[in-house]
Amino acid sequence: MFKKYNVIVVGAGHAGCEAAAAAANLGSSVLLITMNMGVIAQMSCNPAIGGVAKGQIVREIDAMGGYTGIIADKSTIQFRMLNRSKGPAMWSPRTQNDRMRFAEEWRLTLEGIRNVDMWQDTVKEIIVKNGKAAGVITSLGIEIEADSVVLTNGTFLNGVIHIGEKRFGGGRTGEKSATGLTEQLVSLGFESGRMKTGTPPRIDGSSLNYALMEEQWGDEDRSRFSYTDVEIPTEQRCCWITYTNDKVHEMLKTGFEKSPMFTGRIKGLGPRYCPSIEDKINRFAERDRHQIFVEPEGFRTNEIYVNGFSTSLPEDVQQKALQLIPGFENARMYRPGYAIEYDYFPPMQLDLTLETLRVKHLFFAGQINGTTGYEEAGAQGFIAGINAHQRVHDLHELTLKRSESYIGVLIDDLVTKGTEEPYRMFTSRAEHRLLLRQDNADIRLTPIAYKLGLVSEERLNKVTAKVENTDAIVNYMKNNSVTPEAMNPILETVESSAINQKVKLQAMLSRPQLTIFDIAKADEKFASYLNQFDKETIEQAEISVKYASYFEKEMDIVNRMKKMEDQEINPDFDYNTLGSLSIEARQKLAKVKPRTLGQASRISGVSPSDISVLMVHMS
Amino acid sequence: MFKKYNVIVVGAGHAGCEAAAAAANLGSSVLLITMNMGVIAQMSCNPAIGGVAKGQIVREIDAMGGYTGIIADKSTIQFRMLNRSKGPAMWSPRTQNDRMRFAEEWRLTLEGIRNVDMWQDTVKEIIVKNGKAAGVITSLGIEIEADSVVLTNGTFLNGVIHIGEKRFGGGRTGEKSATGLTEQLVSLGFESGRMKTGTPPRIDGSSLNYALMEEQWGDEDRSRFSYTDVEIPTEQRCCWITYTNDKVHEMLKTGFEKSPMFTGRIKGLGPRYCPSIEDKINRFAERDRHQIFVEPEGFRTNEIYVNGFSTSLPEDVQQKALQLIPGFENARMYRPGYAIEYDYFPPMQLDLTLETLRVKHLFFAGQINGTTGYEEAGAQGFIAGINAHQRVHDLHELTLKRSESYIGVLIDDLVTKGTEEPYRMFTSRAEHRLLLRQDNADIRLTPIAYKLGLVSEERLNKVTAKVENTDAIVNYMKNNSVTPEAMNPILETVESSAINQKVKLQAMLSRPQLTIFDIAKADEKFASYLNQFDKETIEQAEISVKYASYFEKEMDIVNRMKKMEDQEINPDFDYNTLGSLSIEARQKLAKVKPRTLGQASRISGVSPSDISVLMVHMS
Repeated sequence: MFKKYNVIVVGAGHAGCEAAAAAANLGSSVLLITMNMGVIAQMSCNPAIGGVAKGQIVREIDAMGGYTGIIADKSTIQFRMLNRSKGPAMWSPRTQNDRMRFAEEWRLTLEGIRNVDMWQDTVKEIIVKNGKAAGVITSLGIEIEADSVVLTNGTFLNGVIHIGEKRFGGGRTGEKSATGLTEQLVSLGFESGRMKTGTPPRIDGSSLNYALMEEQWGDEDRSRFSYTDVEIPTEQRCCWITYTNDKVHEMLKTGFEKSPMFTGRIKGLGPRYCPSIEDKINRFAERDRHQIFVEPEGFRTNEIYVNGFSTSLPEDVQQKALQLIPGFENARMYRPGYAIEYDYFPPMQLDLTLETLRVKHLFFAGQINGTTGYEEAGAQGFIAGINAHQRVHDLHELTLKRSESYIGVLIDDLVTKGTEEPYRMFTSRAEHRLLLRQDNADIRLTPIAYKLGLVSEERLNKVTAKVENTDAIVNYMKNNSVTPEAMNPILETVESSAINQKVKLQAMLSRPQLTIFDIAKADEKFASYLNQFDKETIEQAEISVKYASYFEKEMDIVNRMKKMEDQEINPDFDYNTLGSLSIEARQKLAKVKPRTLGQASRISGVSPSDISVLMVHMS
Repeated sequence: MFKKYNVIVVGAGHAGCEAAAAAANLGSSVLLITMNMGVIAQMSCNPAIGGVAKGQIVREIDAMGGYTGIIADKSTIQFRMLNRSKGPAMWSPRTQNDRMRFAEEWRLTLEGIRNVDMWQDTVKEIIVKNGKAAGVITSLGIEIEADSVVLTNGTFLNGVIHIGEKRFGGGRTGEKSATGLTEQLVSLGFESGRMKTGTPPRIDGSSLNYALMEEQWGDEDRSRFSYTDVEIPTEQRCCWITYTNDKVHEMLKTGFEKSPMFTGRIKGLGPRYCPSIEDKINRFAERDRHQIFVEPEGFRTNEIYVNGFSTSLPEDVQQKALQLIPGFENARMYRPGYAIEYDYFPPMQLDLTLETLRVKHLFFAGQINGTTGYEEAGAQGFIAGINAHQRVHDLHELTLKRSESYIGVLIDDLVTKGTEEPYRMFTSRAEHRLLLRQDNADIRLTPIAYKLGLVSEERLNKVTAKVENTDAIVNYMKNNSVTPEAMNPILETVESSAINQKVKLQAMLSRPQLTIFDIAKADEKFASYLNQFDKETIEQAEISVKYASYFEKEMDIVNRMKKMEDQEINPDFDYNTLGSLSIEARQKLAKVKPRTLGQASRISGVSPSDISVLMVHMS
């Protein structure tokens, strides 16, 4: 009853939605299969997008024609640029979102993309022919053929939910789990593992006393994720901050003997950097309080997400402990927090394209690869969707470099090093993070996406203009000076030492106390010159000038490593023929099948001397 | 971890939402328990509210302070007053609705009602103490105490979904079923049964060719459900009509041997007046086509509901048959239609208050009582919620009479006669339907709701003013005449015979060809008199005048029956003491425990001579 599709995407969460959209926008016929069309693109955990390193990923997805940023912008109830006080490499956009709007906008976006069909069903089995994925079989017993399959099953594969000593099957609370698929993949030779994640209780906001908490408003001068002109809600909502205390911790400890984490009932590892509250008070026993972010779930709903209070302790302990937090004295839960264990497939079984090494034309993206986070999932889905399309149309694959994107870092890390606990992106994971900023994701990636056919010429031209205009401003600042008479009054206000003679604008801007607008205040001609450019371009020029020396150094490093990064290795190379490699290196290299010498050098167990052996052999 | 509640409502569909809201608005503390807070107030079947007889029920709920009408108005994508060409007793408001908006508005409405708490969980057991419901036990093992419990489990109790030969557990497609509760109730002595209902496939509207269908727009002069000033979306969406044909029927027949209906795999009876398409072509073999209403699921979504094509045939047969319908040549399904079997409790086990006879303080509402339809469910939930509150606060119960409301007819029918197939309201079920109109639901019921404390004095005053103003207009028309010179030109245009002398406005209006506005056109003084009243009041006066003689006759009948309807019977009366009653009558009377002689007279198996025996005994 179905035509043969180019791409079948299984699962309609953050990864699946991006995968389906990307493949379809490139021209593939896509079938998106989801267990329940009523709950597409759920924010299963916190109602927020972005944050440190994650916000950069969203900008990268957006720069390449993905939708996470657009949907997040459309459903923003609060925007904040995190780390504004730090260098621009650390600036990270983050939105609080209206959960219902977010899901609805994704659903409507997918409906609006030609080539995306949707089907409500559960995939039980992948059809494999000649070592290639060739379609799926659903719980209705329907066989649907496809040239490639992208799996984005999230936490649904054999999902088990834990609350205290109780446990039950489920992919999310209130929803069924998916069975059968793991077992088939294991029978095909895939290695699978168990991971665990958790979520806090949801609260009826009308039961809270906000007067006892600190208000946290969004930026007044709001920015956005998307480089496109998407319309953003004008209204903003307030969030709040409160803290746990000794009493809360003591109360939580009364539940430890029933904790599925501490009693060993949960075997999978949880996200280290997003620990449960019981984990936090256990691991950081010296801390007498932990921060709690009180986040509304939308514009109009009372529902509150208690960020920082993820827990799988018994529900009565959750409630009693919550009620000891200032402002939560009368807190009423809508539902308790819980932990969920699910199957994942260690990602060293993947190629950098996110195709599995074992079964061609089969792609994995999102939590199934051992990651955590909507942004990480969306990025993988986006790349998997692109490569599923490219693969079945015999087009060149897309892999992003570590030096050009967080997405490249993410996938290289996963595929090269694997992960045994839910992988989350951090700026510290990116050795070239000075170059991977939220302000230049378009400059880095839009040209690549244009070549693929994912963004319009108009968008490319906008980026080209941004680059040219930035250069123009930088050149202007190199060639023009400001006088002491004009500059010194401004310098006095920011407590920077006075100048005695004319100074180039560029040199002036390198003073940390000064912004480009401070200088424009002193120099009317410069101010009127700047006036012709938009805020984003001026900001780009400011960053370029202010951090020029850092960026140059970083580019130097990238260029020096380039040779190794660009040195390709035949993925089918037989490492056993190289006797001088250590045995561990031979095994790991054969398993990971690195694409480049650079990737090979990052495999744990492959030493610099092994790399030398490879270099010698290849030259 | 929970306080003791006055009322626990189990299930958050149309019945549960109205029950929770009504009890809370009366002052009860209410806990609404739902399996998934993300899918509250779903329109599980068609995205529409109201229609013949059902629209009247919605107006009645609204007149008493319930919310179905308000929510439907807020989410209206199209409004039509059905049967405008017939007498006003047949006028029936109906809306097409945005499914997502409808659910969201209910969710937000409930959040906004003080006293309604919500909890996501599944109820496994009712706590019964001393023959009274005293709380619930959930799947998390939590015991929550309450003074009363309202069960509104819809199709979730041991729900089994059928598509062709496949079947699987589920309360709706993509959602889990609920187990345990039926078994407990049966162990308490309740009789349970199985019912069946079904739903059509959902279609990607972008795959349809609307040029081959008939457009169906809503009323230009739109009305609404609610008597309140709720804001209604201004935009309207078009619906379409198309038809099945012989080829469609032949294709459907190829699936009959796998039909769960025809092969006997489904044992429960389905809704007779909302049959599946296979039922229709089977039962009405002489018809060469059936009408299909093509209904959009919302303002912005592509999703289409194929009204009239409910089916549980194999999904490939569904698809092939659909594609033979004009406009559906390339139709793509989002999901197939299916049938669902579920447990219900034959409603003769209930009192007119919807409290169960067997367990006090336990109320049933909605599909659990064997009904079908959002409106029927909402009405029962509303009454059950009111009575749950009244019961636990020792206040007088609310039962509505057959002569004052469709809701009264609905509940009296259920409780007195039971039902073996899903019960749907029709105008024909109401013997006094001339009096039970959509235009006077407020006059009939708002005063009752005011006495209960469910509507404000302001609303009551509005109704009182409507009655007074209506009377004023009627009196004006009784006392004032129109001249032949003024009237005859108008009469000529509507092809009504000319008058030779002055005629009272009232007499003039009794001519079927004339509306009150036609007369106002002839009589400037009358027109300017009418000008001070709103449209609704003028319409009310017109109906009062035009149909006065019918209404008077009907009131006569009501009054004659009143004695019997008002003659109360002690519900604990021992019918075995009356040897002259037939044995069947004794059994049925003991089972139903009728409240009045009128109710007793409607019990099947109780004959007029049995009623005479009762009358003699009681006098």
